[in-house]
Amino acid sequence: MNVVTHIHELKELIQQHQRKQHSIGFVPTMGFLHEGHLTLAKEARDHNDIVVMSIFVNPLQFGPNEDFESYPRDMNRDQRLAEEAGVDILFTPDVKEMYQGEPSITMTVQKRADVLCGKKRPGHFDGVVTVLTKLFHLIEPTKVYFGLKDAQQVAVIEALIQDFFFDLHLVAVPTVREADGLAKSSRNVYLSERERQEAPALYKALKQGEVAVEKGERDPKRIYQLIEKELLQTSGEIDYIDIYSYPELEPLQHLTGKVILAVAVKFSKARLIDNVIFHVPESGEKLV
Amino acid sequence: MNVVTHIHELKELIQQHQRKQHSIGFVPTMGFLHEGHLTLAKEARDHNDIVVMSIFVNPLQFGPNEDFESYPRDMNRDQRLAEEAGVDILFTPDVKEMYQGEPSITMTVQKRADVLCGKKRPGHFDGVVTVLTKLFHLIEPTKVYFGLKDAQQVAVIEALIQDFFFDLHLVAVPTVREADGLAKSSRNVYLSERERQEAPALYKALKQGEVAVEKGERDPKRIYQLIEKELLQTSGEIDYIDIYSYPELEPLQHLTGKVILAVAVKFSKARLIDNVIFHVPESGEKLV
Repeated sequence: MNVVTHIHELKELIQQHQRKQHSIGFVPTMGFLHEGHLTLAKEARDHNDIVVMSIFVNPLQFGPNEDFESYPRDMNRDQRLAEEAGVDILFTPDVKEMYQGEPSITMTVQKRADVLCGKKRPGHFDGVVTVLTKLFHLIEPTKVYFGLKDAQQVAVIEALIQDFFFDLHLVAVPTVREADGLAKSSRNVYLSERERQEAPALYKALKQGEVAVEKGERDPKRIYQLIEKELLQTSGEIDYIDIYSYPELEPLQHLTGKVILAVAVKFSKARLIDNVIFHVPESGEKLV
Repeated sequence: MNVVTHIHELKELIQQHQRKQHSIGFVPTMGFLHEGHLTLAKEARDHNDIVVMSIFVNPLQFGPNEDFESYPRDMNRDQRLAEEAGVDILFTPDVKEMYQGEPSITMTVQKRADVLCGKKRPGHFDGVVTVLTKLFHLIEPTKVYFGLKDAQQVAVIEALIQDFFFDLHLVAVPTVREADGLAKSSRNVYLSERERQEAPALYKALKQGEVAVEKGERDPKRIYQLIEKELLQTSGEIDYIDIYSYPELEPLQHLTGKVILAVAVKFSKARLIDNVIFHVPESGEKLV
């Protein structure tokens, strides 16, 4: 595995692979790798000639009250895990390498940003699309890999690719789950024993919503109530229960097309999120 | 010459050339080609395996009171001229092909935009960088060609390329001039006979400024006065005389580094612009 910190080194390696017409799978991360990242890397490994991973804690996507400085970093461990996952090139630039002075041109996400987790993080996705535009230009990937756990991020990046005609394919990788359905997350270790037992309720609630839609329910209010009822049985505090079209993330009066059901629940020391995305069956069509 | 209107056709042709590792010279235009465009095309022809020209009147770079609808178009003539200039692929999309619905993500030029001609065209360069980002992604040029007649546009596009790490080289082609120094422009035909005789004063004034700097003058106010004195001898109305660092386009108290002297003069039926860009000799160093 090549570990490079400078853009010119990265580009030299990328050009070598381009000359051989190699397909490039790209996994952008902020490091402190967990199973989710490694699943993305393995997926990239299986479907591309080479795998590039970036580790860059992007200051532009942190708000003034967010934890940029204290965001966890462990480069030695990350390097080992990336190499084990089959990464060929690990790009670990510092902030100066990625942001050379005040920008002359900025990007602003006008849609899909001000809902779900983005509601409380103004400017977050502006930072995400800016750094990804730079990384896409440096790495020129054939495919780029993101986890559906952060379905809003996937929706925004689909918009980025479509709006600006990026010549690459986004692969949205399904959320990896524990045996009891709980979405894997580095934050699960902060749950108390009781909370850990309650936490599968998020996925259970979402699945109940999905099943109700399959059975013919099309009223988002009724789906909301079903999900809420299940979540109220936990000791957590419901942050949001949202039902939107996907990937547009627009509210629906009547469920149709592709939809997302998404929840966030605050436990004592961890805020958990989860979602399900599915096609609503044609209207009138009851599966039971 | 291949003339293509659809993105998928364009990409197919581009991919054929990429497989052959051809270098691609790109000349973006809004059509109604004149000698300036053809100079860019010839420059591209001389230094690349293939030449791609786009003709697209980009609505996003026109203000609400500007002449998008009435902007001159003559596709038949343009096709002939492009072919004669050695263009291999002429891309002529319609608006729907380039803008598929309301954008989710926008670009804003924060620097270099609100000076010179951009002062009176808010949003103009936002439209320019948006459409160029799309075109760069579709065409993946090795080199892209712009005329230095519009030096502000060149400065903004240099910022675009630098800020977002576009993997391409901008070639800024010097302004083509008549024998008497007047910058060539489609608008020169609107000058009266007397105005046509006066019009070389723009370049003469700029060169006087440049010579004064070469001789040791570093005070922008004195350079301004020199240029103004020359322009006041014409019947035109001075729109602006600006002296900035280049390509940053920031005001200078004392001339140093690379600078631009730029003027705009309104004659009865034509507004003419011109500029000179040069390195200021090291301080203290008098050439005379």
